[in-house]
Amino acid sequence: MAYKDAPTRAVSVDGVDFVYRQLGPEGGVPVLLLNHLAAVLDNWDPRVVDGLAAKHRVITFDNRGVGASGGSTPETIEAMTHDAIAFIQALGLEQVDLLGFSMGGFISQRIAQEEPRLVRKIILAGTGPAGGEGIDKVTAVTLQGIVRGALTFQDPKQSLFFTRTANGRQAGREFLQRLKEREEGRDKAMSLRAFRAQLKAIRRWGRQEPADLSTITHPVLVANGDSDRMVPSRNTVALAERLPNSEFIPLYPDAGHGGIFQYHEEFVRKALEFLTP
Amino acid sequence: MAYKDAPTRAVSVDGVDFVYRQLGPEGGVPVLLLNHLAAVLDNWDPRVVDGLAAKHRVITFDNRGVGASGGSTPETIEAMTHDAIAFIQALGLEQVDLLGFSMGGFISQRIAQEEPRLVRKIILAGTGPAGGEGIDKVTAVTLQGIVRGALTFQDPKQSLFFTRTANGRQAGREFLQRLKEREEGRDKAMSLRAFRAQLKAIRRWGRQEPADLSTITHPVLVANGDSDRMVPSRNTVALAERLPNSEFIPLYPDAGHGGIFQYHEEFVRKALEFLTP
Repeated sequence: MAYKDAPTRAVSVDGVDFVYRQLGPEGGVPVLLLNHLAAVLDNWDPRVVDGLAAKHRVITFDNRGVGASGGSTPETIEAMTHDAIAFIQALGLEQVDLLGFSMGGFISQRIAQEEPRLVRKIILAGTGPAGGEGIDKVTAVTLQGIVRGALTFQDPKQSLFFTRTANGRQAGREFLQRLKEREEGRDKAMSLRAFRAQLKAIRRWGRQEPADLSTITHPVLVANGDSDRMVPSRNTVALAERLPNSEFIPLYPDAGHGGIFQYHEEFVRKALEFLTP
Repeated sequence: MAYKDAPTRAVSVDGVDFVYRQLGPEGGVPVLLLNHLAAVLDNWDPRVVDGLAAKHRVITFDNRGVGASGGSTPETIEAMTHDAIAFIQALGLEQVDLLGFSMGGFISQRIAQEEPRLVRKIILAGTGPAGGEGIDKVTAVTLQGIVRGALTFQDPKQSLFFTRTANGRQAGREFLQRLKEREEGRDKAMSLRAFRAQLKAIRRWGRQEPADLSTITHPVLVANGDSDRMVPSRNTVALAERLPNSEFIPLYPDAGHGGIFQYHEEFVRKALEFLTP
């Protein structure tokens, strides 16, 4: 089954329905995908999800208040972390691998620190540590990108996730087309309220004291484009340097925040290697 | 010639190039179109331009700093008015009719007050008087609409210009398709800087003391949708009541700020009647 056809299910988390989709073979440790600011289930690149699902059970979900999930989105990464842990437990999973993209990478780091045994391996993409350089500017960069998108008749992810070279523009157009492949049963749109709450949470994360990452002893694979304007690429380098058991994919050239989507073939190949038990 | 094929020309206004397009028969009083916030030449509904150009010479232009026009967009409606007057004079026109949409309607009112003899007749659509109710909230409404657009994978004009009924959504989709009809020689995108300057100018216009409209003695045709969220529809009613020589088109039903685009056939018919010498 392809991600574009995966049914949207719901599970009750402390009395609130969280929606999710899953696909790929049963057995083994499933891979939980944690998504970016303003993203719902339909924001995952189907090539990345399908690529990982060729070998692993893959689960995508909407955290509290996001898309079709119930409740109100909290205003801290810590509270989002508790919700994500409760979701994993509600599915009855004993251990998961994590793929955290951008804000989802912040949550992944916190899950690993709070419930280290719940996690086997972690992939961090387009993300950074608490207190990481420039992360507190995500709100300004995002709003500017959204307005620029409106003024140029294009999706804001074009300028926020990709470089402005001919190559980057083409990669952006292809990515945006892939996000439309699912025609039936699309997720509910993000609400303004949830978006604002996430922006606050990200700003707080960016303003925290630098976190001690030496406590995350899991194997971690770190990836990004070389020109990320949202979570500046030097944060990816900082993660690789400060995580004691990390593997660093050289920054994808001429690629921005959406580097793993632009280089989805290379990324999936590397991720499958890394996740092999 | 159709608007989508009209070449973009430039004229020097005090040493700065202003871009414009013109079409329709020579002779008679030309109709100058004054555009809305964040709009460039390609934001005019080709059905409205072509409809008017069947009988009149029609001129669209980018005011200072907008789209491909040079210079910096000023932060007051008054300064935009002076630029528009200088543009009319640079084209060597002795008298014009005005179609002012939204912010372009603000400028049209000021042109009529500052240079009454330069103007023969005026059409005001989706607009309101200085100090009009709710006009100072355009910034908040617009930014919210832009963010909502980004979160719902759609052009912000869908929710800002049209109602959310099935009918309104369909009209919005059709309008947005029409804006893409021109494929070659499209205008330069609006800059963030020009957009911000226009937002300031609109907020100031909304906060001014109510203007004395009794000095505008020109024939004026007033139109809007019945559910305008950007320049609330009661402003259209106020214009009709306070302009001494006005004709009021009953508010278009189930239509928003983009009412004249949604009802382009009815609007063009009425406008041509009104403009007949």
